[in-house]
Amino acid sequence: MDLLKIKDPSFLQGLSIKELESLSKEIRQFLIEKLSVTGGHIGPNLGVVELTIALHKCFNSPKDKIIWDVGHQSYVHKILTGRACEFDTLRQYKGLCGFPKMAESEHDVWETGHSSTSLSAAMGMAIARDLKKENYFVVPVIGDGALTGGMALEALNHIGHEKKDMIVILNDNEMSIAPNVGALHNILGQLRTAGKYQWVKDELEFLLKKIPAVGGKLAATAERVKDSLKYLFVSGMFFEELGFTYLGPVDGHNFEDLFENIAYAKKTEGPILLHVITKKGKGFHPAESDKTGTWHGTGPYKMDTGDFVKPNKKQPPAWSSLVSETVRRLARDDERIVAITPAMPVGSKLEGFASEFPDRMYDVGIAEQHAATMAAGLATQNMKPYLAIYSTFLQRAYDQVVHDIARQNLNVFIGIDRAGLVGADGETHQGVFDIAFLRHIPNIILMMPKDENEGQHMVYTALNYDDGPIAMRFPRGNGVGVPLDKELQNIPIGTWEVLREGEDAAILTFGTTIPMAMKAAEQLEKLGISVKVVNARFIKPMDEIMLTSLLDENMPILTIEEAVLQGGFGSYVLEYAHSKGYYQVQIDRMGIPDKFIEHGDVSSLLEEIGLTTEEVVKRVSVLARKKQKRA
Amino acid sequence: MDLLKIKDPSFLQGLSIKELESLSKEIRQFLIEKLSVTGGHIGPNLGVVELTIALHKCFNSPKDKIIWDVGHQSYVHKILTGRACEFDTLRQYKGLCGFPKMAESEHDVWETGHSSTSLSAAMGMAIARDLKKENYFVVPVIGDGALTGGMALEALNHIGHEKKDMIVILNDNEMSIAPNVGALHNILGQLRTAGKYQWVKDELEFLLKKIPAVGGKLAATAERVKDSLKYLFVSGMFFEELGFTYLGPVDGHNFEDLFENIAYAKKTEGPILLHVITKKGKGFHPAESDKTGTWHGTGPYKMDTGDFVKPNKKQPPAWSSLVSETVRRLARDDERIVAITPAMPVGSKLEGFASEFPDRMYDVGIAEQHAATMAAGLATQNMKPYLAIYSTFLQRAYDQVVHDIARQNLNVFIGIDRAGLVGADGETHQGVFDIAFLRHIPNIILMMPKDENEGQHMVYTALNYDDGPIAMRFPRGNGVGVPLDKELQNIPIGTWEVLREGEDAAILTFGTTIPMAMKAAEQLEKLGISVKVVNARFIKPMDEIMLTSLLDENMPILTIEEAVLQGGFGSYVLEYAHSKGYYQVQIDRMGIPDKFIEHGDVSSLLEEIGLTTEEVVKRVSVLARKKQKRA
Repeated sequence: MDLLKIKDPSFLQGLSIKELESLSKEIRQFLIEKLSVTGGHIGPNLGVVELTIALHKCFNSPKDKIIWDVGHQSYVHKILTGRACEFDTLRQYKGLCGFPKMAESEHDVWETGHSSTSLSAAMGMAIARDLKKENYFVVPVIGDGALTGGMALEALNHIGHEKKDMIVILNDNEMSIAPNVGALHNILGQLRTAGKYQWVKDELEFLLKKIPAVGGKLAATAERVKDSLKYLFVSGMFFEELGFTYLGPVDGHNFEDLFENIAYAKKTEGPILLHVITKKGKGFHPAESDKTGTWHGTGPYKMDTGDFVKPNKKQPPAWSSLVSETVRRLARDDERIVAITPAMPVGSKLEGFASEFPDRMYDVGIAEQHAATMAAGLATQNMKPYLAIYSTFLQRAYDQVVHDIARQNLNVFIGIDRAGLVGADGETHQGVFDIAFLRHIPNIILMMPKDENEGQHMVYTALNYDDGPIAMRFPRGNGVGVPLDKELQNIPIGTWEVLREGEDAAILTFGTTIPMAMKAAEQLEKLGISVKVVNARFIKPMDEIMLTSLLDENMPILTIEEAVLQGGFGSYVLEYAHSKGYYQVQIDRMGIPDKFIEHGDVSSLLEEIGLTTEEVVKRVSVLARKKQKRA
Repeated sequence: MDLLKIKDPSFLQGLSIKELESLSKEIRQFLIEKLSVTGGHIGPNLGVVELTIALHKCFNSPKDKIIWDVGHQSYVHKILTGRACEFDTLRQYKGLCGFPKMAESEHDVWETGHSSTSLSAAMGMAIARDLKKENYFVVPVIGDGALTGGMALEALNHIGHEKKDMIVILNDNEMSIAPNVGALHNILGQLRTAGKYQWVKDELEFLLKKIPAVGGKLAATAERVKDSLKYLFVSGMFFEELGFTYLGPVDGHNFEDLFENIAYAKKTEGPILLHVITKKGKGFHPAESDKTGTWHGTGPYKMDTGDFVKPNKKQPPAWSSLVSETVRRLARDDERIVAITPAMPVGSKLEGFASEFPDRMYDVGIAEQHAATMAAGLATQNMKPYLAIYSTFLQRAYDQVVHDIARQNLNVFIGIDRAGLVGADGETHQGVFDIAFLRHIPNIILMMPKDENEGQHMVYTALNYDDGPIAMRFPRGNGVGVPLDKELQNIPIGTWEVLREGEDAAILTFGTTIPMAMKAAEQLEKLGISVKVVNARFIKPMDEIMLTSLLDENMPILTIEEAVLQGGFGSYVLEYAHSKGYYQVQIDRMGIPDKFIEHGDVSSLLEEIGLTTEEVVKRVSVLARKKQKRA
């Protein structure tokens, strides 16, 4: 059938299982083709083709609420709800979002991006439904990886206690982004091999009800024998103990199994956990046989070979790689260095570290809070923990950074990866808040390098710093291509670097926006305006000596940051100037305005928000002119 | 014995059980007496007297690491580690801290205040120990309430998987701060009644090992039968499934039981969960019979009657009460209003709401992340969730506010209780970061009332606002004593209020610091300086019209906030002024400097950090003089 003509999922009602199987094939082919051009989360989506079809056949969306945890597996859902025709623009500027988006469709009832939120959202919807005496199913779909996130566990505990009607689909593909960790993973593993028992359970419970209830100790024993028998026949005691009815495991690629179990779940009261086994990447050999998570999300690839489309020229090292490999190099001489990642060993390029130092590398799963506080625990024992975490996910550990790491002033090195605009993943993933949410925390050092050479020296600086927490933010993507010094060296804390001298105005900036500043300075020079450009590599503490001298000179200042303006670096400069009584100095700030920034290529986004060389030229011209007027 | 003479716990080694029991009595008497004067966390500490003695007798602190989760139950530990003589200063300015504090003693190996951090810290310490090939016990002590916190569950999952040696003491007093909620609570309840089986287990496992291992399906069945038998005899399958060896339940007030089980735990490899049942408030009748959590933490009380020492004159309504009761009043006419608290129904004074609207009140336990996102889920269904949360605990839900509430622009009303300095609880609990961590989030409205009358109107405003999240911060303690309007009214979003006219300078402030500003203005008037005082009740968005007119007049401005200066309200004023090109205006800011603020009465703390009327007078004098010079 023509996928592009699908308007909504109602057409599924008329299809036989054979037709659904053929539809599945078409959808797979469609995804493999489209994503070979645009890139995207191919693995997770190929895994949920039948499951998504089954959910849309068995439930009545959007009246019934299907909630996609993490959301990157919602492509099939998008196809079935009338968005196939937009896949050419997937994850592109103004194009189809790679995650559920309310503005795109009424079938997207909850937006995601960060994992483990679906169960809490579902609980809120279920409470609303019951209070309003409405009648619909709430169906969160959560992966086995996301289940280890603390907030998902908080929600399981609460839902099981409240006994709300809800059908939780556990999409178990035995790996989330990387192979899973944690005891829960082992529990799921046992369940997978244990077979299906849910039908037995009904009969068993019927029999058990006949055991006479007797008082006191005997009753407790009888209760215990019941539970024990139940345990013999019923899988999923972990979930049953939490108050859920466990169903499964079900083959997530078999429509008959899915229909049968979903029908049973719909008839059953209280919270259900339906354990569905799927194969990530199913139907596309390279993705299906992926063991490391390489095919979780990709750029463009060749459909026939599964080779990734590589850029024509050799790229400078990826930032994640540069940082992790420098940590690894330093770990050879310092046994105290331990690396920690919350489920991102591949994204953070920690595979090399892990293979060289297997006992000093901890992937804790999707558990940012635990990761941060475990790092703090290590630091109390004079170890040197390196916490590798994406900017957007560090948001999950804000309190742990405040309360456990910074308040105790512990030597944790936080590598803030994907800082700044991340592009295609969009608004749920932009790493634009970290300066604003870290800068106000006492004791923290926060820095950002201008290039990979400075980056490696900063890693060295961080791992040699021993007076509290120190964080280095670095962008998604690759370095700028400078040669790397052989010898690593310490960068004195709180020092900036003048990249270009100038008299009429100064630009203070760091990291990815330095090239923009330098280019603008060149253009301004041609206009007769001489601009000083400063690499403000320490965001906190600032180089107060250099800043004071600029203020003393009454130098107009423009700050530029690829981060939110509110409470950011420029704001810090303002605070400093005013706290020292430099009221008259003209300070202008460029950065990300007060709104969420959607997906798209970074250059389009920068253009949209006015973070461009032209704007820098314009702003500095105004500032410098003002200075000239006064002078 | 003389508790004041205790230097360290080594003296415990020589004592018989009888002597330990007598010591327990003395410690209880000491705590009941001392806390009757100072106030403090009496309930939790009376519950852990024997447990703490047993831990210090069986373990070798500080070599062995005893980690007190949440930390308010560490008083007995403080007595046994030589700090009895400081109890007269408990929780007072420069006095003994109510929580573990590294600076006080080498026996305090981990500082706490927020709950659920101990397991992650313990994991970090255990990893460090093993990497350094050292040999000591790691013993986190965690309450049943704290166990529902997501990060504790993340840690359980990781610890169970890694099989590190660790002895987790589950201090189960059947209630944390308020009666517990959640499925885990039910699991613990079953365990409590199930009796002791741990000795049976050893024999059972010995027998089970004799079942011959056979291949394929049969092996799986045999494995299952084993597990089932185990389930019959062994309590704590929940924890066993997570990879822990479960021991217990043990009577936490019986030394023989404690010693026996701790000895067994010390001999056992891998992670142990020792389930200890204690009675909160034990030995002091009013606290022991407390069902609601009133005796969790208290002010001074009368030892004989257990009556609380009440202030002589009638107090204005408590802020928590004012807010919750106004929500309750509005809930009578708006069925969409639902209240949510993460384990603070008493502290947030939601008992009245709960009794009137039992099905519209959700205490989710210690689970701030889930609470926030569940509120978002409710809001997607056009409900009006009221999330009652302390400022310091909202830190735990930062990402949920960004990613789930604000990004989706959902109508959640966040009541930020205990905003500003909280006093005796100290640096782990100060509510001073919320402005800085909320202000930069798009879509959020943030306000703070000047008094309880404005407070009730703000609650009305918030629950009638329907264009996204809105938060109201309010302080610990009581209102200022103004009469309350009968009729509730809407306060236009983003409007400030002039409290006092003036020509020479303007003070912009809100909430608790308004009286300070008004007093300073009076004093300044006598000095011939006329000061305008503005109630900047909307922190975000600001009243841009009023602010612009001040800037247009070139009025020197002083901002005052009981919150961190970095990225705070004053910083927002600076940002606005500069973004609009008002470079010349003198803007000075007062607030909390860039360090963690310890415990003590709020007035001493304000004095210490210079948030005083005198300082306001001084700062305005300087600003106003400057203006006069220019004019």
